[in-house]
Amino acid sequence: MDVTTGLNTIWVILAAAMIIFMEGGFSLLEAGLVRTKNAVNVTMKIFVDLTFGALAFYAIGYALMFGADWLGLIGLQFNATSEGTTPNGLPLSAVVLFQIAFAMAVASIISGAVAERMKFPAYIVIVILVCGLLYPISGHWVWGGGWLQQLGMKDFAGSAAIHAMGGFAALALAMILGPRKNRFNKDGSANVFAPSNIPLASAGGFILWFGWFGFNAGSTLNALDANLSSIALNTFLAAAAGGASAILFSMARFKAADPSMAINGSLAGLVAITAGCAFVGPKSAILIGLIGGVLVILATGWIDKLKVDDPVGAVAVHGFNGVFGTLAVGLFDLSEGLLTTGNTDLLLIQLLGVGVVSVWGFGSAYLVGQLIKRTIGIRVTAAEEEQGLDIVAHGIPAYNELERFSDANPVPGFHVPVPEPSPKPVLQE
Amino acid sequence: MDVTTGLNTIWVILAAAMIIFMEGGFSLLEAGLVRTKNAVNVTMKIFVDLTFGALAFYAIGYALMFGADWLGLIGLQFNATSEGTTPNGLPLSAVVLFQIAFAMAVASIISGAVAERMKFPAYIVIVILVCGLLYPISGHWVWGGGWLQQLGMKDFAGSAAIHAMGGFAALALAMILGPRKNRFNKDGSANVFAPSNIPLASAGGFILWFGWFGFNAGSTLNALDANLSSIALNTFLAAAAGGASAILFSMARFKAADPSMAINGSLAGLVAITAGCAFVGPKSAILIGLIGGVLVILATGWIDKLKVDDPVGAVAVHGFNGVFGTLAVGLFDLSEGLLTTGNTDLLLIQLLGVGVVSVWGFGSAYLVGQLIKRTIGIRVTAAEEEQGLDIVAHGIPAYNELERFSDANPVPGFHVPVPEPSPKPVLQE
Amino acid sequence: MDVTTGLNTIWVILAAAMIIFMEGGFSLLEAGLVRTKNAVNVTMKIFVDLTFGALAFYAIGYALMFGADWLGLIGLQFNATSEGTTPNGLPLSAVVLFQIAFAMAVASIISGAVAERMKFPAYIVIVILVCGLLYPISGHWVWGGGWLQQLGMKDFAGSAAIHAMGGFAALALAMILGPRKNRFNKDGSANVFAPSNIPLASAGGFILWFGWFGFNAGSTLNALDANLSSIALNTFLAAAAGGASAILFSMARFKAADPSMAINGSLAGLVAITAGCAFVGPKSAILIGLIGGVLVILATGWIDKLKVDDPVGAVAVHGFNGVFGTLAVGLFDLSEGLLTTGNTDLLLIQLLGVGVVSVWGFGSAYLVGQLIKRTIGIRVTAAEEEQGLDIVAHGIPAYNELERFSDANPVPGFHVPVPEPSPKPVLQE
Repeated sequence: MDVTTGLNTIWVILAAAMIIFMEGGFSLLEAGLVRTKNAVNVTMKIFVDLTFGALAFYAIGYALMFGADWLGLIGLQFNATSEGTTPNGLPLSAVVLFQIAFAMAVASIISGAVAERMKFPAYIVIVILVCGLLYPISGHWVWGGGWLQQLGMKDFAGSAAIHAMGGFAALALAMILGPRKNRFNKDGSANVFAPSNIPLASAGGFILWFGWFGFNAGSTLNALDANLSSIALNTFLAAAAGGASAILFSMARFKAADPSMAINGSLAGLVAITAGCAFVGPKSAILIGLIGGVLVILATGWIDKLKVDDPVGAVAVHGFNGVFGTLAVGLFDLSEGLLTTGNTDLLLIQLLGVGVVSVWGFGSAYLVGQLIKRTIGIRVTAAEEEQGLDIVAHGIPAYNELERFSDANPVPGFHVPVPEPSPKPVLQE
Repeated sequence: MDVTTGLNTIWVILAAAMIIFMEGGFSLLEAGLVRTKNAVNVTMKIFVDLTFGALAFYAIGYALMFGADWLGLIGLQFNATSEGTTPNGLPLSAVVLFQIAFAMAVASIISGAVAERMKFPAYIVIVILVCGLLYPISGHWVWGGGWLQQLGMKDFAGSAAIHAMGGFAALALAMILGPRKNRFNKDGSANVFAPSNIPLASAGGFILWFGWFGFNAGSTLNALDANLSSIALNTFLAAAAGGASAILFSMARFKAADPSMAINGSLAGLVAITAGCAFVGPKSAILIGLIGGVLVILATGWIDKLKVDDPVGAVAVHGFNGVFGTLAVGLFDLSEGLLTTGNTDLLLIQLLGVGVVSVWGFGSAYLVGQLIKRTIGIRVTAAEEEQGLDIVAHGIPAYNELERFSDANPVPGFHVPVPEPSPKPVLQE
Repeated sequence: MDVTTGLNTIWVILAAAMIIFMEGGFSLLEAGLVRTKNAVNVTMKIFVDLTFGALAFYAIGYALMFGADWLGLIGLQFNATSEGTTPNGLPLSAVVLFQIAFAMAVASIISGAVAERMKFPAYIVIVILVCGLLYPISGHWVWGGGWLQQLGMKDFAGSAAIHAMGGFAALALAMILGPRKNRFNKDGSANVFAPSNIPLASAGGFILWFGWFGFNAGSTLNALDANLSSIALNTFLAAAAGGASAILFSMARFKAADPSMAINGSLAGLVAITAGCAFVGPKSAILIGLIGGVLVILATGWIDKLKVDDPVGAVAVHGFNGVFGTLAVGLFDLSEGLLTTGNTDLLLIQLLGVGVVSVWGFGSAYLVGQLIKRTIGIRVTAAEEEQGLDIVAHGIPAYNELERFSDANPVPGFHVPVPEPSPKPVLQE
């Protein structure tokens, strides 16, 4: 292997490892933002993404997404292989690993919005379908040689293909599920359940920020790409700006620098720069981030007004900022953006592209959700929701710290076998 | 330095950093799986691995493991140096750092199995002996030019040399220590103590998964290795498959998707693919992972039946899957595996190799454990065990959240100097 | 882009990502070491570093630090740009990102020492001034072509420029703030508030250790640097030695292996080797680490005796060990150290340099602190301190686990809008 190929290979592998690590970021973020009684459940859902989702994309999705194009609609390479190389010599196994990491991110976006009330088996089925079928189809349109790519849509690392797709699929499933008990009042006002563990959520945010360098700069798939370092810088600047504007807007609006908003503001900046990180200048990146940080707070309120319950703000972060970020390329692209060059063509293509991807994400997930609802069922019972999914689906609470000073009363049996009606089945008095 | 050497150097350094970060993964995993009263203690034991263990390997172990071979048994380069380069030009300091990271992993495997009841000074002595002497000896046989390597044993990144060695050393020490109070009942049945903090344990799992890319792909020590990216892909696929099969098996057997089993299932897949990641195809990697995820749950039950107490499942994850992974090379190796080529030679060599390494790990650790038991003592008193090692050995509990709304009663003195018999010495009312 | 430049670019980008990830390390470390009621606040302060601090350095600080030198005192390149390349071809955007990551570290050192009692808006102003003005000035002296660099001061990755600067700025601000309530008694003795979450603090420590490989080895900015791997090895060895000596000294002095001291001991080793990692041998690195691990415990006591309240030990870790590490280059430098060559010149230059930087850090931060104290105010009220800054500034406690088994009483409204006098405004019962 020549040195350039070796360099590209380790670049892609390291970037893939960082993106895979982002699954840990999603997990801790969501476990910290939901209520304690569902913290194990959201963690296990990320494990579903990392296992069932990854294998489904590897077995089916990759071929549909990157197989030989058929009419711009779908890939038809049913013998997808991870052997061989890309035209520029990069081993396919590296590319496949990188693309698996991307596919899992779509599932993980969804996991947050459906938290605290979805049946665990239903989630497994949804993830298999999203990673194996739904995401690869729209992914083919944008990245696999499909019709949106042929039109000239620019979505460097996936504000549309990953985040808008995942965000609007999340919206559809959150709507089908309905809100958690007591989330909205009869007078139309909304209640907020306090996040259970802010430091844990922040740890997730830090991991996501770290991994995003792999996500965006790694999408070059080429260590010799002249834009690589400006992609990384743009990524960072947008995140910093998104966090800054979210903190300031939160202080102005709520008289408090809300931690969920600060974290989600940074993530909003990251989502919004993901499409344009290779196409815009650093000042535009900062502006995109500043807008993203405000947009995520406004969108959180709008979604509440629709009485859709998104426990971690996934729709606001990924859906709304995915759309905004895709459009921002049409505005700020250095060679054909509206504000930079006066050209309107790109903006219209971006509008079409992100619109189509969002509608596809929403519609296809809605269909899948309804199908599951009418077959194996999608929502837990009211009693199970009250008890919390940790006990119901996993037989154990997230935190068992009360036994700190006693080991007199252990849990009987190899494992807590069946969820108990008792409220505290594994805690000792 | 030429560009190829520079590329290899940063590859090895980054891989080493990722493996060293795995120590954090072990620490959080174990701190989350043990009871709260021992969470500080397991954390501090990982610090012992990172400090005393690392320095012992650097000072003595490296020379024994990689020094000039003497009769296939031991390295005899008593002036080991980190200056100079390997034959292919890689700076020795990079290799030494990488090997230190590997040695610490052996100690960290042990730390989990002996949790909640071992004297802290005894652990320090054990880690120094394991990293400075026991692991380097068998490591020399497998990787340092010793007799197993001469026989043709294939253990790419250490299913045998690291995981089976550490796992069976852990078993020996867990047996010498005996089970924690109330862990087994007089009728032969077992009790399980609920893990104290599942999200923390999952954070450890995510870090381990991330670091494993450095562990396995980094073991090429060569960025131009044509197998590098398929090693990374195999590593991921086996982990995904291990997690998937553990989740399904757990749901079938316990009617609950147990989080400890999901995490340990992924780790089992990682351990099992570690020997063969460079030698098997991706479908074999998935199969190896699937088996590993079931094996770890079965093995956890078998170890319970033996009335050996392994609080975090280290023997099941690292010992059993280390053996299985080493044998799997003999089955699935692309050029000389039994199932792929009909050749039985490699399988027999693998069987011999992993058998020898496991017996060495068990036997040498058993000897060391008995020696320590009869000298400085290895197990804390029943009263200390009841109180928890955090107070006994470290003077502070892991979580001090009860003072959330009061600072009226601080802890007197620069530090809590001596463990108190009082159950809550540093918590305020 | 040629392959060497591509290699250097990904090296610097990956190192920068690792250093940026260290912000997560600072955050978790500090959130674990402070009391629970201020854990959100320290987390949000790190977000301030990552947002306002980063943008201030990008907008102003970088130009002051690396602009064309004026009289050795300051950079005067007011049109700093991230376009173009360095003389050896590295894209400036990579260097800028790397330097932003360094600047944020200075702010994060300060954040710990001022924890639990500073007004949040005051912290934002301080961070903007530190990252935009104070650090770039002394940074210019040491690294930007200024007078200390011209004198021959050796500070490879910033024991002086980052750690002593940040540590003594932290000391000044901690003195201006005064100690937390009940931290010192009338008889002159000190109280210690138990850290709220040791596993969380350890997670921060592990992330910092991981990121430090980017910090030190990344400072080569050159993947072909012949010292790169020995820098990484020295960095690790000093951390291991610092942790080991801190554990042993803590066991000897307090009869307990204190976890805060073990973590801070490792960090002390890392800080102390930061100046010399490229200039000393591995045995010297171990010796430097061993001294650092003891020094941090002694210095913690000295600072207590001065009745300065540093909740996380930032002054002891970064200030004292930053000074020691800078001087250690004068002692152990392979080509001109006092103990290695008998030459005293370098030691005197190091003494001058770190003295000047420390005085600048202390003095400039003291001025800024007084200015803020007399304008917008720097310290929260006694009632706010008693309540905790999480509620006061952020409207939410760090942990809301008590609602584990109930969702009957959600938090009303979109967000907890105004801090309440009630002690538990968002917990249900």
